[in-house]
Amino acid sequence: MSIIMSPATKQLIDALCCLQGVGPKTAQRMAFQLLAEPNREKGHKLTNALHTALNTVTLCNRCRCYTEQDLCLLCCNLSRTPELLCVVESPADIIAIEETQAFKGFYFVLHGHLSPLDGIGPDEIAIPQLFNMIQKRSITDIIIATNPTMEGKATAHYIATHVASNVTCSQLAHGVPLGGELEYLDGGTLAHALQMRTTIKEKIGE
Amino acid sequence: MSIIMSPATKQLIDALCCLQGVGPKTAQRMAFQLLAEPNREKGHKLTNALHTALNTVTLCNRCRCYTEQDLCLLCCNLSRTPELLCVVESPADIIAIEETQAFKGFYFVLHGHLSPLDGIGPDEIAIPQLFNMIQKRSITDIIIATNPTMEGKATAHYIATHVASNVTCSQLAHGVPLGGELEYLDGGTLAHALQMRTTIKEKIGE
Repeated sequence: MSIIMSPATKQLIDALCCLQGVGPKTAQRMAFQLLAEPNREKGHKLTNALHTALNTVTLCNRCRCYTEQDLCLLCCNLSRTPELLCVVESPADIIAIEETQAFKGFYFVLHGHLSPLDGIGPDEIAIPQLFNMIQKRSITDIIIATNPTMEGKATAHYIATHVASNVTCSQLAHGVPLGGELEYLDGGTLAHALQMRTTIKEKIGE
Repeated sequence: MSIIMSPATKQLIDALCCLQGVGPKTAQRMAFQLLAEPNREKGHKLTNALHTALNTVTLCNRCRCYTEQDLCLLCCNLSRTPELLCVVESPADIIAIEETQAFKGFYFVLHGHLSPLDGIGPDEIAIPQLFNMIQKRSITDIIIATNPTMEGKATAHYIATHVASNVTCSQLAHGVPLGGELEYLDGGTLAHALQMRTTIKEKIGE
């Protein structure tokens, strides 16, 4: 295959392969699609967007979400509850939570989770910066919304045990997802949902 | 969502969405992946590869495959059979055929098929250039490997009826794919395979 493909085309296919979920076949189709376009406008638009984003987007000084400014749009929003903070692993988690419209506080992005075996300790995921921000901005209530994995839970535990004593920490509820079917749920979640069941009618009398 | 995403990030996600098979969710994951990388090396590599390919890759003067030179690597290969030509709809088809190692002639890429309703006639898919090349390079045998669709078949028929009379035209065999199961094959293909069955033992006697 390498013999018949021109070097620039091959390089483009290889570079597209680095995108998540894109294998050699998909990359080849994408490359030919971009090259086949009459004025190659989509391709040039993508090149420019990549160039701009890679060179201007940095982390927000306060919440570590992606932004081109010192502070991101969320941190600049004065209508949000200032004493409420949600700690997440990645910026994609912010988007998922914002889509629910159920949270009106601020965020802090760890960009990962504790993983001592990989050399990722509290400093690597900016936990000192988190504690600093909590103290400086008088935050009293934090929701630790790390992923429900071993590492995510360990990270939540670390934050909860090391944060200042005057701060309330909570985590997301675990249980049966709405709209799901019990039959297909994993045993661990179901066991947890049974244990943490909520009363919907108290008994009367006696 | 647009309120919380920085403009450059949003623009990158929109641009990634133009890639084939990439929806908004996948584009978002790709953008965050590129931005999250420590030195953003993959992203810069992709930007450069796109820039180079979009600005240098053109069509080969002879076969219309993608190349940065006047002639592509295949057309420069003097060890191939000069009088044999395979006509395909897209450069991806060349790669598929080359992978079989069953064809040793040259190629010609139409970059599409006849589609009068969309205003695509013989000129738009370079059929005059094809006939020119057939005459100039004394090609005697062409395999029309357009897709087995209505438009692909119409294109093949047009080429076969308009090409010079001293040229042999053939098309790919239709039938049951190797390794497939008859049960899952469409009726049209199966009917064709029955009609075009090949004898594997002649009767003896009388």
